[in-house]
Amino acid sequence: MEAVTSPQQESSGPITRGCQWLKSLPNKFCDKTMEIARKTKKLGQDDPRRIVHALKVGLAITLVSLFYYFEPLYDGFGDSAMWAVLTVVIVLEFSVGATLGKGLNRMLATLVAGALGVGAHRLATLSGRQREPILLATFVFIIAVVTTFIRFFPKVKARYDYGMMIFILTFCLVSVSGYRDDQVLEMARDRFSTILIGSCASLIVCICIFPVWIGEDLHKSVAANMGKLANFLEAFGDEYFKVSEESNENNKSYLQGYRSVLTSKSSEETMANFARWELGHGPFGYRHPWKMYLKVGNLTRDCAYKVEALNSYLNSKIQSPAEIRGKIQVPCKRVSLECSGALKEMASTFRKMVRTRSAVMHIESSKKAAEELKSLLKTNLWEEADLLEMIPAASVASLVLEIIECIDKISEAVNELGEAACFRKSNATVLPEQPDSIQQETVQQDSNTAMPVPHCVIVVAE
Amino acid sequence: MEAVTSPQQESSGPITRGCQWLKSLPNKFCDKTMEIARKTKKLGQDDPRRIVHALKVGLAITLVSLFYYFEPLYDGFGDSAMWAVLTVVIVLEFSVGATLGKGLNRMLATLVAGALGVGAHRLATLSGRQREPILLATFVFIIAVVTTFIRFFPKVKARYDYGMMIFILTFCLVSVSGYRDDQVLEMARDRFSTILIGSCASLIVCICIFPVWIGEDLHKSVAANMGKLANFLEAFGDEYFKVSEESNENNKSYLQGYRSVLTSKSSEETMANFARWELGHGPFGYRHPWKMYLKVGNLTRDCAYKVEALNSYLNSKIQSPAEIRGKIQVPCKRVSLECSGALKEMASTFRKMVRTRSAVMHIESSKKAAEELKSLLKTNLWEEADLLEMIPAASVASLVLEIIECIDKISEAVNELGEAACFRKSNATVLPEQPDSIQQETVQQDSNTAMPVPHCVIVVAE
Repeated sequence: MEAVTSPQQESSGPITRGCQWLKSLPNKFCDKTMEIARKTKKLGQDDPRRIVHALKVGLAITLVSLFYYFEPLYDGFGDSAMWAVLTVVIVLEFSVGATLGKGLNRMLATLVAGALGVGAHRLATLSGRQREPILLATFVFIIAVVTTFIRFFPKVKARYDYGMMIFILTFCLVSVSGYRDDQVLEMARDRFSTILIGSCASLIVCICIFPVWIGEDLHKSVAANMGKLANFLEAFGDEYFKVSEESNENNKSYLQGYRSVLTSKSSEETMANFARWELGHGPFGYRHPWKMYLKVGNLTRDCAYKVEALNSYLNSKIQSPAEIRGKIQVPCKRVSLECSGALKEMASTFRKMVRTRSAVMHIESSKKAAEELKSLLKTNLWEEADLLEMIPAASVASLVLEIIECIDKISEAVNELGEAACFRKSNATVLPEQPDSIQQETVQQDSNTAMPVPHCVIVVAE
Repeated sequence: MEAVTSPQQESSGPITRGCQWLKSLPNKFCDKTMEIARKTKKLGQDDPRRIVHALKVGLAITLVSLFYYFEPLYDGFGDSAMWAVLTVVIVLEFSVGATLGKGLNRMLATLVAGALGVGAHRLATLSGRQREPILLATFVFIIAVVTTFIRFFPKVKARYDYGMMIFILTFCLVSVSGYRDDQVLEMARDRFSTILIGSCASLIVCICIFPVWIGEDLHKSVAANMGKLANFLEAFGDEYFKVSEESNENNKSYLQGYRSVLTSKSSEETMANFARWELGHGPFGYRHPWKMYLKVGNLTRDCAYKVEALNSYLNSKIQSPAEIRGKIQVPCKRVSLECSGALKEMASTFRKMVRTRSAVMHIESSKKAAEELKSLLKTNLWEEADLLEMIPAASVASLVLEIIECIDKISEAVNELGEAACFRKSNATVLPEQPDSIQQETVQQDSNTAMPVPHCVIVVAE
């Protein structure tokens, strides 16, 4: 057990060491328990919906298992009632989209495969008892091979993978069981009804008790990603052009927030796939353009790659001297702050599902600052400088200019999405003299998380 | 159906239009069928292992359903034999790692939950018929809530998520069924044995017939990602410093290969999680350091972000004029070619699981070229140039210098991994006068895909 021992331990006998190990055991156990308790608390605090979900699962399973305890309910289905309990365990997922996707897949697949299974059983019995297993095995083999191959199609894998599995499962269950039990039709009917009950119970619990709409999560996550980039760009100017070395460590975490954007692609795709199953809820209609969120997400990620390049100049060993950096400081900081402003504005209005031109104004001012930066670079301010020392500062300037283009593209995509999803139109920030729309804006901000905007109420203030 | 109609169609009656629609139907159907056939063919050609997997699933299910057809086998388990078929449908996955993970999770969870379920049933019956359902429901509720919450722990989610679900499922099945059927012990035993049979059948089919080792896929994928970056860097020099505009479109796809590296994080993590379940196979031991592959993957991705920044200068509207680019062409191209060489060398030796110093030599020469580039930038070659025009070229130079650092880090991580995984040591490329090791190298190259290197055969040629 103990490969590495200290000289002191080596001198003592194995019994003494064993005793020491045993003595340290309660401490180790205590530490481990404390750590798990701490992690559990953090997990619950980070997202209290997790605790609610766990309680929902418990409730749904307990409710459905009542079928088993009450005589009149049990008499209808007998042992098949157990399928309802199993269905709840499997189908009830964290979000409404995932639950609906799994539930519909399971119900539809069971219905189709049950019908096919009964058909296969009838066909096989016609051929006589001898040939029946051969025919059944052939059917099962063909269905299993074809369906398994279909699961590899990317579109099928994204939305119907679970249904395909249940299809094979139910087909095997019904057609093979038929060999021993002639009441296949009853079995298929019972299986379908119990799965229907289980799925409906899951859906009711999932939707009616503190529902978690994955579409809303996707909406917030896309907005949050823009906000993360904005935070970086806001802090970047001060961090890069700072003269002294103080406060280097304090806001490192603040500057690293954008890194999660770099690898957000797969989680966004999963969320969009689930969101497409969801019913209309709150401000999101049934045919909400979830696919366009992926486009905005991709453009945000492209911007994050530029930000990553910018970040590498913060920590680079080769730095331009402070006086060279000082020369581009003013316009560079302004571009970065205006970019940050544009992203923050977009993140905030996007989150509130409002269409405004306020971000465009920030982009315009950043473009103006960019022109200043360019003309500054054109002047011969630089003649005496060493080119090698200048390169990092010049690269930073060039990256900052590229980021403007990225943000322009994001803004376009956000606008397109806003139009397709009928976001509320508002130009409150453009025309601050209109008290009505400002008030509305404020109300909106307070009830931020609930997002109580009704479907497509277009307030045209122009 | 047809919201948008041409004026011509509008003038004709609805019957004529209906006829036209019906006439076009067979054509549409034909087109659709052809498209699906084309896609199916491509899916099979891209990875023929998919076809093999589909056949394996068909075979395993058919084999296990024999239990149902043959009297002596059926007598042992009765209707429970169906659980074996269901287990095969659910457990048999594309790769050995995924199948082992699911199979072990399912078996272990069934065993533990079955035992607990029997215990809960015994405890509940002691309290009398009246209070039994209340006690059972309480047990089920507590187990469901606690287990569902545990599923949120990231480590549990990555490896034991399926097991946790089966745990709830089996516990409910055994404890709740016990209320109607007193032979819970027999039920738990039957369920466990049939799941054991199903899981073992899946594992045997999965491992014995053309096994797909996900660890090998991860190994190849990490090497391929390095190769993709190498391909970009190889082509970059020619593309960026080319004088005329010809052949711009031809090798665009060649230059875009690296983009898949940017978003490879989640697939690599999934593969590593599955790979950890796999037994030792071929050159990969049971405790192969799969986690270190993630480190190499992360560093490769960091390098890909730089390459992405480099790529943006290829397509940028703001370009340095050809004469400015011409000034840095020679050392810049050399750095990029040497970096590409280092990555190619690493990709190839990593794939073959050999440790050599050949990549280090490429890195050394790229560093020499970098020094040349730096001293070139220091000279006053540039005085007459416009700074704004110079910036893109200077940024490219700076990025190329940064890429060397990235590759240095990758090389270190690859070396660490090579040591931890006991890669074969070879310096064939360093000392080409040793015919033995060269021959070995050649043999290795031919049987590239099979990777027949035995465990840790260390050929020290020094």
